[in-house]
Amino acid sequence: MMDNEMIINILVGGPCEELPENFWKSSFSEDHWIGADKGAVDLVKHHQSLLFAVGDFDSSSEEEIELVKENVPELITFKPEKDYTDTELSVKLAIDKYHPKKITIYGATGGRIDHLLANIMFVLKPEFRFYADKIKIIDRRNIINFFLPGKYTINKEENFDYLAFIPLEKIKNLNLYDEKYKLNNANYTYPIALASNEFVGDKASFSFESGLLCVIQSKD
Amino acid sequence: MMDNEMIINILVGGPCEELPENFWKSSFSEDHWIGADKGAVDLVKHHQSLLFAVGDFDSSSEEEIELVKENVPELITFKPEKDYTDTELSVKLAIDKYHPKKITIYGATGGRIDHLLANIMFVLKPEFRFYADKIKIIDRRNIINFFLPGKYTINKEENFDYLAFIPLEKIKNLNLYDEKYKLNNANYTYPIALASNEFVGDKASFSFESGLLCVIQSKD
Repeated sequence: MMDNEMIINILVGGPCEELPENFWKSSFSEDHWIGADKGAVDLVKHHQSLLFAVGDFDSSSEEEIELVKENVPELITFKPEKDYTDTELSVKLAIDKYHPKKITIYGATGGRIDHLLANIMFVLKPEFRFYADKIKIIDRRNIINFFLPGKYTINKEENFDYLAFIPLEKIKNLNLYDEKYKLNNANYTYPIALASNEFVGDKASFSFESGLLCVIQSKD
Repeated sequence: MMDNEMIINILVGGPCEELPENFWKSSFSEDHWIGADKGAVDLVKHHQSLLFAVGDFDSSSEEEIELVKENVPELITFKPEKDYTDTELSVKLAIDKYHPKKITIYGATGGRIDHLLANIMFVLKPEFRFYADKIKIIDRRNIINFFLPGKYTINKEENFDYLAFIPLEKIKNLNLYDEKYKLNNANYTYPIALASNEFVGDKASFSFESGLLCVIQSKD
Protein backbone atom coordinates (compact mmCIF):
# COMPACT_ATOMS: atom_id res chain seq x y z
CA MET A 1 0.00 0.00 0.00
CA MET A 2 1.35 3.42 -0.93
CA ASP A 3 1.55 5.71 2.06
CA ASN A 4 -0.79 8.23 0.52
CA GLU A 5 -3.51 5.60 0.14
CA MET A 6 -3.40 4.84 3.85
CA ILE A 7 -6.42 5.41 6.07
CA ILE A 8 -5.63 5.96 9.75
CA ASN A 9 -8.05 5.77 12.66
CA ILE A 10 -7.26 7.39 16.00
CA LEU A 11 -8.94 6.54 19.30
CA VAL A 12 -8.54 9.21 21.97
CA GLY A 13 -9.67 8.91 25.56
CA GLY A 14 -13.21 10.35 25.59
CA PRO A 15 -16.13 8.60 27.36
CA CYS A 16 -16.96 5.18 25.81
CA GLU A 17 -20.69 5.89 25.72
CA GLU A 18 -20.08 8.47 22.97
CA LEU A 19 -18.50 5.93 20.61
CA PRO A 20 -20.65 4.85 17.64
CA GLU A 21 -23.06 1.98 18.34
CA ASN A 22 -21.38 -1.41 17.98
CA PHE A 23 -17.97 0.28 17.77
CA TRP A 24 -16.22 -2.61 19.52
CA LYS A 25 -18.32 -5.28 17.85
CA SER A 26 -17.66 -4.08 14.31
CA SER A 27 -14.69 -5.71 12.62
CA PHE A 28 -12.03 -3.05 12.26
CA SER A 29 -8.96 -5.25 12.40
CA GLU A 30 -8.04 -4.39 8.80
CA ASP A 31 -7.64 -0.70 9.58
CA HIS A 32 -4.57 1.13 10.83
CA TRP A 33 -4.98 2.43 14.35
CA ILE A 34 -3.27 4.91 16.64
CA GLY A 35 -4.23 5.06 20.31
CA ALA A 36 -3.96 8.18 22.45
CA ASP A 37 -3.77 7.68 26.20
CA LYS A 38 -6.79 5.71 27.49
CA GLY A 39 -7.67 5.10 23.81
CA ALA A 40 -4.49 3.04 23.41
CA VAL A 41 -5.33 1.03 26.54
CA ASP A 42 -8.84 0.31 25.25
CA LEU A 43 -7.61 -0.74 21.80
CA VAL A 44 -5.04 -3.14 23.27
CA LYS A 45 -7.64 -4.58 25.65
CA HIS A 46 -9.80 -5.30 22.59
CA HIS A 47 -6.84 -7.03 20.86
CA GLN A 48 -6.49 -4.38 18.19
CA SER A 49 -2.94 -3.92 16.91
CA LEU A 50 -1.63 -0.34 16.76
CA LEU A 51 0.85 1.60 14.64
CA PHE A 52 1.86 3.44 17.81
CA ALA A 53 0.50 4.81 21.08
CA VAL A 54 0.86 8.37 22.31
CA GLY A 55 0.14 10.26 25.53
CA ASP A 56 1.21 10.87 29.11
CA PHE A 57 -1.00 8.03 30.43
CA ASP A 58 -1.53 9.97 33.66
CA SER A 59 -5.00 8.51 34.09
CA SER A 60 -3.91 4.89 33.46
CA SER A 61 -2.79 2.29 36.02
CA GLU A 62 0.71 0.79 35.92
CA GLU A 63 -0.79 -2.50 34.71
CA GLU A 64 -2.49 -0.71 31.85
CA ILE A 65 0.69 1.12 30.83
CA GLU A 66 2.57 -2.20 30.98
CA LEU A 67 -0.10 -3.81 28.79
CA VAL A 68 0.31 -1.06 26.20
CA LYS A 69 4.12 -1.33 26.30
CA GLU A 70 3.95 -5.08 25.70
CA ASN A 71 1.54 -4.89 22.79
CA VAL A 72 2.37 -1.72 20.88
CA PRO A 73 5.46 -1.41 18.65
CA GLU A 74 6.09 2.22 19.64
CA LEU A 75 5.04 4.19 22.71
CA ILE A 76 5.50 7.95 22.42
CA THR A 77 5.18 9.74 25.75
CA PHE A 78 5.19 13.44 26.56
CA LYS A 79 5.23 15.50 29.72
CA PRO A 80 1.77 16.59 30.88
CA GLU A 81 2.84 20.23 30.27
CA LYS A 82 3.12 19.74 26.53
CA ASP A 83 1.98 22.33 23.98
CA TYR A 84 -0.31 19.97 22.09
CA THR A 85 -3.35 17.96 23.20
CA ASP A 86 -3.26 14.18 22.82
CA THR A 87 -5.47 14.47 19.76
CA GLU A 88 -3.18 17.04 18.18
CA LEU A 89 -0.08 14.94 18.91
CA SER A 90 -1.70 11.84 17.40
CA VAL A 91 -2.75 13.68 14.26
CA LYS A 92 0.60 15.47 13.91
CA LEU A 93 2.54 12.20 14.21
CA ALA A 94 0.14 10.44 11.82
CA ILE A 95 0.69 13.16 9.22
CA ASP A 96 4.47 13.34 9.70
CA LYS A 97 5.02 9.57 9.70
CA TYR A 98 2.49 8.36 7.13
CA HIS A 99 0.92 11.37 5.35
CA PRO A 100 -2.29 9.33 5.11
CA LYS A 101 -5.16 9.88 2.70
CA LYS A 102 -7.65 10.12 5.56
CA ILE A 103 -7.62 10.40 9.37
CA THR A 104 -10.72 9.46 11.35
CA ILE A 105 -10.84 10.34 15.04
CA TYR A 106 -13.01 8.53 17.62
CA GLY A 107 -13.36 9.25 21.35
CA ALA A 108 -12.91 13.00 20.86
CA THR A 109 -16.30 14.04 22.23
CA GLY A 110 -18.31 13.84 25.45
CA GLY A 111 -17.33 14.98 28.90
CA ARG A 112 -15.38 18.21 29.09
CA ILE A 113 -16.47 20.85 26.59
CA ASP A 114 -13.02 22.47 26.51
CA HIS A 115 -11.69 19.14 25.19
CA LEU A 116 -14.43 18.95 22.59
CA LEU A 117 -13.81 22.51 21.41
CA ALA A 118 -10.05 21.87 21.30
CA ASN A 119 -10.68 18.71 19.26
CA ILE A 120 -12.72 20.67 16.73
CA MET A 121 -10.80 23.97 16.62
CA PHE A 122 -7.31 22.49 16.24
CA VAL A 123 -7.79 22.16 12.48
CA LEU A 124 -7.57 25.98 12.29
CA LYS A 125 -3.92 25.93 13.40
CA PRO A 126 -1.44 26.39 10.53
CA GLU A 127 0.20 22.99 11.17
CA PHE A 128 -3.15 21.18 10.72
CA ARG A 129 -5.15 23.50 8.45
CA PHE A 130 -3.63 22.20 5.20
CA TYR A 131 -4.79 18.71 6.24
CA ALA A 132 -8.26 19.75 7.44
CA ASP A 133 -10.22 18.18 4.57
CA LYS A 134 -8.65 14.78 5.31
CA ILE A 135 -9.72 14.80 8.97
CA LYS A 136 -13.03 13.39 10.22
CA ILE A 137 -14.42 13.11 13.76
CA ILE A 138 -17.07 10.47 14.46
CA ASP A 139 -19.17 9.76 17.55
CA ARG A 140 -22.49 8.12 18.33
CA ARG A 141 -24.63 10.91 16.93
CA ASN A 142 -22.29 13.10 14.89
CA ILE A 143 -20.07 12.84 11.81
CA ILE A 144 -17.85 15.92 11.54
CA ASN A 145 -15.92 16.91 8.41
CA PHE A 146 -13.84 19.97 7.59
CA PHE A 147 -13.51 21.78 4.27
CA LEU A 148 -11.11 24.31 2.78
CA PRO A 149 -12.39 26.79 0.17
CA GLY A 150 -13.83 25.16 -2.95
CA LYS A 151 -16.98 23.54 -4.31
CA TYR A 152 -18.12 20.19 -2.92
CA THR A 153 -20.85 17.58 -3.15
CA ILE A 154 -21.24 15.28 -0.14
CA ASN A 155 -23.29 12.12 0.34
CA LYS A 156 -25.89 11.64 3.05
CA GLU A 157 -24.90 9.15 5.75
CA GLU A 158 -27.68 6.66 6.43
CA ASN A 159 -29.88 7.58 9.43
CA PHE A 160 -28.15 10.92 9.98
CA ASP A 161 -31.05 13.28 9.39
CA TYR A 162 -29.55 16.67 10.21
CA LEU A 163 -26.93 18.70 8.43
CA ALA A 164 -25.09 21.71 9.86
CA PHE A 165 -22.72 24.17 8.20
CA ILE A 166 -20.42 25.81 10.71
CA PRO A 167 -17.96 28.49 9.58
CA LEU A 168 -15.25 28.20 12.25
CA GLU A 169 -13.92 31.62 11.25
CA LYS A 170 -14.74 34.49 8.88
CA ILE A 171 -16.04 33.00 5.64
CA LYS A 172 -16.78 34.48 2.19
CA ASN A 173 -19.52 33.66 -0.29
CA LEU A 174 -21.02 30.53 1.23
CA ASN A 175 -23.49 28.91 -1.16
CA LEU A 176 -25.82 26.08 -0.19
CA TYR A 177 -27.21 24.96 -3.53
CA ASP A 178 -29.63 22.11 -2.96
CA GLU A 179 -30.18 21.73 0.81
CA LYS A 180 -33.54 22.22 2.53
CA TYR A 181 -32.47 25.77 3.50
CA LYS A 182 -30.39 27.39 0.75
CA LEU A 183 -27.88 30.23 0.90
CA ASN A 184 -26.61 32.52 -1.83
CA ASN A 185 -23.18 34.14 -1.37
CA ALA A 186 -23.56 34.55 2.38
CA ASN A 187 -20.72 36.22 4.29
CA TYR A 188 -19.97 35.75 7.99
CA THR A 189 -17.46 37.83 9.91
CA TYR A 190 -17.48 35.60 13.02
CA PRO A 191 -17.95 31.87 13.72
CA ILE A 192 -21.57 30.74 13.46
CA ALA A 193 -23.35 27.39 13.67
CA LEU A 194 -25.95 27.10 10.92
CA ALA A 195 -27.61 24.07 12.50
CA SER A 196 -30.67 21.97 11.64
CA ASN A 197 -30.40 22.05 7.86
CA GLU A 198 -31.24 18.83 5.96
CA PHE A 199 -30.41 16.94 2.79
CA VAL A 200 -33.00 16.99 0.01
CA GLY A 201 -32.26 13.60 -1.50
CA ASP A 202 -28.94 11.83 -1.01
CA LYS A 203 -26.48 14.59 -1.87
CA ALA A 204 -25.74 18.14 -0.79
CA SER A 205 -23.66 20.69 -2.69
CA PHE A 206 -22.00 23.78 -1.29
CA SER A 207 -19.15 26.18 -2.02
CA PHE A 208 -17.27 29.03 -0.35
CA GLU A 209 -14.27 31.21 -1.15
CA SER A 210 -12.30 31.72 2.06
CA GLY A 211 -12.14 30.44 5.63
CA LEU A 212 -12.60 26.98 7.07
CA LEU A 213 -15.97 25.24 7.14
CA CYS A 214 -17.04 22.47 9.52
CA VAL A 215 -19.90 20.28 8.27
CA ILE A 216 -21.75 18.01 10.69
CA GLN A 217 -24.20 15.24 9.87
CA SER A 218 -26.08 14.26 13.01
CA LYS A 219 -29.01 12.37 14.47
CA ASP A 220 -31.01 12.74 17.68
CA MET B 1 -37.39 43.59 42.65
CA MET B 2 -36.04 45.94 40.00
CA ASP B 3 -35.88 44.33 36.58
CA ASN B 4 -32.16 44.78 36.32
CA GLU B 5 -31.61 42.79 39.53
CA MET B 6 -33.44 39.81 38.09
CA ILE B 7 -31.71 36.48 37.56
CA ILE B 8 -33.28 34.25 34.92
CA ASN B 9 -32.66 30.54 34.38
CA ILE B 10 -33.48 28.85 31.11
CA LEU B 11 -33.95 25.11 30.60
CA VAL B 12 -33.63 23.98 26.99
CA GLY B 13 -34.25 20.48 25.73
CA GLY B 14 -30.85 18.74 25.87
CA PRO B 15 -30.39 15.24 27.32
CA CYS B 16 -31.24 15.06 31.06
CA GLU B 17 -28.08 13.13 31.90
CA GLU B 18 -26.02 16.26 31.16
CA LEU B 19 -27.82 18.35 33.81
CA PRO B 20 -25.81 19.09 36.99
CA GLU B 21 -25.98 16.40 39.67
CA ASN B 22 -29.07 16.78 41.85
CA PHE B 23 -30.50 19.37 39.45
CA TRP B 24 -34.09 18.31 40.12
CA LYS B 25 -33.53 17.69 43.81
CA SER B 26 -32.05 21.11 44.52
CA SER B 27 -34.55 23.74 45.61
CA PHE B 28 -34.80 26.26 42.81
CA SER B 29 -38.35 27.40 43.32
CA GLU B 30 -37.25 30.93 44.23
CA ASP B 31 -35.65 31.50 40.84
CA HIS B 32 -37.26 32.80 37.68
CA TRP B 33 -37.45 30.17 34.95
CA ILE B 34 -38.07 30.06 31.23
CA GLY B 35 -38.59 26.70 29.51
CA ALA B 36 -37.73 26.02 25.89
CA ASP B 37 -39.50 23.13 24.21
CA LYS B 38 -38.89 19.86 26.12
CA GLY B 39 -37.31 22.00 28.86
CA ALA B 40 -40.70 23.64 29.50
CA VAL B 41 -42.38 20.24 29.71
CA ASP B 42 -39.78 18.99 32.21
CA LEU B 43 -40.07 22.11 34.39
CA VAL B 44 -43.88 21.85 34.54
CA LYS B 45 -43.67 18.12 35.32
CA HIS B 46 -41.43 19.03 38.26
CA HIS B 47 -43.97 21.64 39.45
CA GLN B 48 -41.73 24.60 38.69
CA SER B 49 -43.58 27.78 37.75
CA LEU B 50 -42.39 29.58 34.62
CA LEU B 51 -42.30 33.15 33.35
CA PHE B 52 -43.09 31.79 29.90
CA ALA B 53 -42.45 28.82 27.61
CA VAL B 54 -41.07 29.00 24.09
CA GLY B 55 -40.59 26.59 21.19
CA ASP B 56 -42.27 24.62 18.44
CA PHE B 57 -42.80 21.58 20.69
CA ASP B 58 -42.45 19.29 17.69
CA SER B 59 -40.93 16.54 19.85
CA SER B 60 -43.63 16.74 22.56
CA SER B 61 -46.86 14.76 22.80
CA GLU B 62 -50.26 16.48 22.75
CA GLU B 63 -50.67 15.69 26.44
CA GLU B 64 -47.35 17.38 27.20
CA ILE B 65 -48.24 20.48 25.19
CA GLU B 66 -51.61 20.60 27.01
CA LEU B 67 -49.83 20.31 30.35
CA VAL B 68 -47.60 23.27 29.46
CA LYS B 69 -50.57 25.34 28.25
CA GLU B 70 -52.41 24.73 31.51
CA ASN B 71 -49.51 25.61 33.76
CA VAL B 72 -47.58 28.38 32.06
CA PRO B 73 -48.85 31.98 31.88
CA GLU B 74 -47.54 32.53 28.35
CA LEU B 75 -46.71 30.05 25.59
CA ILE B 76 -44.74 31.52 22.69
CA THR B 77 -44.65 29.23 19.66
CA PHE B 78 -42.78 29.59 16.40
CA LYS B 79 -42.73 27.71 13.12
CA PRO B 80 -40.00 25.07 12.91
CA GLU B 81 -38.43 27.09 10.04
CA LYS B 82 -37.58 30.00 12.30
CA ASP B 83 -34.32 31.96 12.07
CA TYR B 84 -33.36 31.46 15.72
CA THR B 85 -32.73 28.33 17.76
CA ASP B 86 -34.87 27.69 20.83
CA THR B 87 -31.98 28.81 23.02
CA GLU B 88 -31.58 32.04 21.06
CA LEU B 89 -35.33 32.75 21.18
CA SER B 90 -35.42 32.17 24.94
CA VAL B 91 -32.45 34.44 25.56
CA LYS B 92 -33.72 37.13 23.19
CA LEU B 93 -37.15 37.19 24.82
CA ALA B 94 -35.60 37.17 28.31
CA ILE B 95 -33.47 40.20 27.39
CA ASP B 96 -36.28 42.09 25.65
CA LYS B 97 -38.90 41.44 28.34
CA TYR B 98 -36.86 41.64 31.55
CA HIS B 99 -33.31 42.86 30.75
CA PRO B 100 -32.07 40.64 33.58
CA LYS B 101 -28.81 40.95 35.47
CA LYS B 102 -27.87 37.36 34.66
CA ILE B 103 -29.10 34.52 32.42
CA THR B 104 -28.09 30.93 33.20
CA ILE B 105 -28.80 28.24 30.62
CA TYR B 106 -29.21 24.53 31.42
CA GLY B 107 -29.87 21.63 29.02
CA ALA B 108 -27.83 23.24 26.23
CA THR B 109 -25.24 20.46 25.93
CA GLY B 110 -25.06 16.77 25.10
CA GLY B 111 -26.34 14.97 22.04
CA ARG B 112 -25.93 16.79 18.77
CA ILE B 113 -22.70 18.77 18.45
CA ASP B 114 -24.23 21.27 16.01
CA HIS B 115 -26.68 22.20 18.78
CA LEU B 116 -23.85 22.55 21.29
CA LEU B 117 -21.80 24.74 18.95
CA ALA B 118 -24.88 26.86 18.16
CA ASN B 119 -25.54 27.24 21.90
CA ILE B 120 -21.99 28.50 22.46
CA MET B 121 -21.43 30.55 19.29
CA PHE B 122 -24.70 32.51 19.38
CA VAL B 123 -23.19 35.03 21.79
CA LEU B 124 -21.05 36.29 18.87
CA LYS B 125 -24.13 37.56 17.02
CA PRO B 126 -24.65 41.33 17.30
CA GLU B 127 -28.06 40.93 18.98
CA PHE B 128 -26.51 38.86 21.82
CA ARG B 129 -22.89 40.02 21.95
CA PHE B 130 -23.60 43.09 24.11
CA TYR B 131 -25.17 40.72 26.68
CA ALA B 132 -22.47 38.01 26.48
CA ASP B 133 -20.93 38.69 29.90
CA LYS B 134 -24.33 38.16 31.57
CA ILE B 135 -24.85 34.72 30.00
CA LYS B 136 -23.72 31.47 31.60
CA ILE B 137 -24.13 27.84 30.46
CA ILE B 138 -24.00 25.07 33.05
CA ASP B 139 -23.99 21.30 32.72
CA ARG B 140 -22.81 18.32 34.75
CA ARG B 141 -19.11 18.88 34.12
CA ASN B 142 -18.82 22.38 32.67
CA ILE B 143 -19.47 25.99 33.71
CA ILE B 144 -19.18 28.28 30.69
CA ASN B 145 -18.89 32.07 30.90
CA PHE B 146 -18.32 34.70 28.23
CA PHE B 147 -16.31 37.91 28.47
CA LEU B 148 -16.06 41.10 26.46
CA PRO B 149 -12.72 43.00 26.38
CA GLY B 150 -11.52 44.13 29.81
CA LYS B 151 -9.70 42.94 32.90
CA TYR B 152 -11.33 40.33 35.15
CA THR B 153 -10.78 38.24 38.25
CA ILE B 154 -12.92 35.11 38.57
CA ASN B 155 -13.46 32.73 41.48
CA LYS B 156 -12.82 29.00 41.36
CA GLU B 157 -15.96 26.84 41.49
CA GLU B 158 -15.63 24.06 44.04
CA ASN B 159 -14.55 20.71 42.54
CA PHE B 160 -14.07 22.16 39.07
CA ASP B 161 -10.36 21.54 38.60
CA TYR B 162 -9.76 22.64 35.02
CA LEU B 163 -9.84 26.07 33.46
CA ALA B 164 -9.92 26.81 29.73
CA PHE B 165 -9.62 30.10 27.86
CA ILE B 166 -11.23 29.94 24.44
CA PRO B 167 -11.05 32.94 22.11
CA LEU B 168 -14.16 32.39 19.95
CA GLU B 169 -12.76 34.81 17.37
CA LYS B 170 -9.64 36.91 16.71
CA ILE B 171 -8.40 38.26 20.03
CA LYS B 172 -5.76 40.86 20.97
CA ASN B 173 -3.38 40.96 23.91
CA LEU B 174 -4.65 38.11 26.04
CA ASN B 175 -2.94 38.08 29.44
CA LEU B 176 -3.25 35.24 31.94
CA TYR B 177 -1.71 36.72 35.08
CA ASP B 178 -1.83 34.12 37.82
CA GLU B 179 -2.98 30.82 36.31
CA LYS B 180 -0.84 27.64 36.22
CA TYR B 181 0.09 28.43 32.60
CA LYS B 182 0.52 32.19 32.07
CA LEU B 183 0.30 34.28 28.90
CA ASN B 184 1.68 37.72 28.13
CA ASN B 185 -0.04 39.78 25.41
CA ALA B 186 -0.85 36.77 23.24
CA ASN B 187 -2.64 37.39 19.94
CA TYR B 188 -4.77 34.86 18.07
CA THR B 189 -6.08 35.38 14.56
CA TYR B 190 -8.46 32.42 14.64
CA PRO B 191 -10.56 30.62 17.30
CA ILE B 192 -8.50 28.42 19.60
CA ALA B 193 -9.24 26.36 22.71
CA LEU B 194 -6.53 26.88 25.32
CA ALA B 195 -7.65 23.91 27.41
CA SER B 196 -6.36 22.25 30.56
CA ASN B 197 -5.14 25.33 32.42
CA GLU B 198 -5.74 25.48 36.19
CA PHE B 199 -6.31 27.92 39.04
CA VAL B 200 -3.41 28.57 41.40
CA GLY B 201 -5.41 29.28 44.53
CA ASP B 202 -9.03 30.39 44.45
CA LYS B 203 -8.89 33.20 41.92
CA ALA B 204 -7.74 33.71 38.34
CA SER B 205 -7.08 37.04 36.63
CA PHE B 206 -6.98 37.74 32.92
CA SER B 207 -7.40 40.58 30.44
CA PHE B 208 -7.69 41.13 26.69
CA GLU B 209 -8.31 44.06 24.36
CA SER B 210 -10.60 42.87 21.57
CA GLY B 211 -12.73 39.89 20.60
CA LEU B 212 -14.94 37.63 22.68
CA LEU B 213 -13.53 35.14 25.18
CA CYS B 214 -15.23 31.97 26.43
CA VAL B 215 -13.97 30.71 29.81
CA ILE B 216 -14.83 27.18 30.94
CA GLN B 217 -14.37 25.68 34.37
CA SER B 218 -14.69 21.91 34.14
CA LYS B 219 -14.22 18.58 35.88
CA ASP B 220 -13.69 15.03 34.59
